[in-house]
Amino acid sequence: MKEYQIFKNIQKHISLSNTEREFFISILIEKDIAKKEIVLEQGSVSSKLYFVEFGSLRAFNVNEEGRESTIMLAVQDWWITDMYSFVNKKPALLSIETLEVSRLIEFDFIMLEKLYKRLPKFERFFRILFQNAYIREQLRVLDNISFTTEQRYTRFIDKYPQIVKKVTQKQIASYLGVTPEFLSSVKKKLS
Amino acid sequence: MKEYQIFKNIQKHISLSNTEREFFISILIEKDIAKKEIVLEQGSVSSKLYFVEFGSLRAFNVNEEGRESTIMLAVQDWWITDMYSFVNKKPALLSIETLEVSRLIEFDFIMLEKLYKRLPKFERFFRILFQNAYIREQLRVLDNISFTTEQRYTRFIDKYPQIVKKVTQKQIASYLGVTPEFLSSVKKKLS
Repeated sequence: MKEYQIFKNIQKHISLSNTEREFFISILIEKDIAKKEIVLEQGSVSSKLYFVEFGSLRAFNVNEEGRESTIMLAVQDWWITDMYSFVNKKPALLSIETLEVSRLIEFDFIMLEKLYKRLPKFERFFRILFQNAYIREQLRVLDNISFTTEQRYTRFIDKYPQIVKKVTQKQIASYLGVTPEFLSSVKKKLS
Repeated sequence: MKEYQIFKNIQKHISLSNTEREFFISILIEKDIAKKEIVLEQGSVSSKLYFVEFGSLRAFNVNEEGRESTIMLAVQDWWITDMYSFVNKKPALLSIETLEVSRLIEFDFIMLEKLYKRLPKFERFFRILFQNAYIREQLRVLDNISFTTEQRYTRFIDKYPQIVKKVTQKQIASYLGVTPEFLSSVKKKLS
């Protein structure tokens, strides 16, 4: 049986029998995506939830004045979509692009509902996944309050060592909520 | 049978049979809390998840410099805790206090795990709850990017009409991530 990263991810929280694994594999859709491809465009409805088998992605928003902000990053073993759009079938507030050649596993809304029905233990899996995602967002709000830009930049490098070389300084700055100029002065102090 | 607000909340996402309702009621712990009581203290481990039957609460963080920031608000029909602390059994990063006389229903971690085992449909309920909480946090990040303080203040009043009179201007300002002086100048422009 082919080894998928996604099983390691799932088995952090639930265990699957061989039959359940086989069913899960039968509904998997794998996509190999080139570098710098848009997999979700802001304004369109997000119809897919992605798991990153390998590679990395960036989610960003362009506001009314045309200013782009990087909101999320996803590396191997992460899940990503515009969840607001995916759940509510409303226009996405984010675009998502690959930062390098990536292999994604995609789930559409109907497939997920089928999965919940057929294997209810996936309710538990996604309950824990969303619980952790919610906690992460809360910690990000608190990090912004509690830490200096210098500390947050250091934490960013520690958290995403494999991504630092794949994004621009401007993208890191907007992810940290500061101007590129300010980030540049912080980096000079650190070096 | 006594009518609980919490059943309306739960039945938005799952339906309970009479037997299931009875079991659920048998494990419910109701607490009436006076105004301005601390129900969770930053630094201690959060052992309870609260549902607000009526009343309102505020969650805040005090950083190393002693600066207090209001992070979350909860009104009737909302859930609140320091989820990071509750799940990981780590010291809470937030304190939570009642803003008025409130009736809370409390769940501890072990009780919740029992509930998931006995009535697995609660996995679905909390999966949807955390999914929505995650989406809300994401929208808050995007709101900060997309809207002016003026727009965000107006949206805050629309969202929490019942809470505006119960919190100080300083607390609203910190929730919106601006100084009280700046909020005051924004309000003058609006009036």
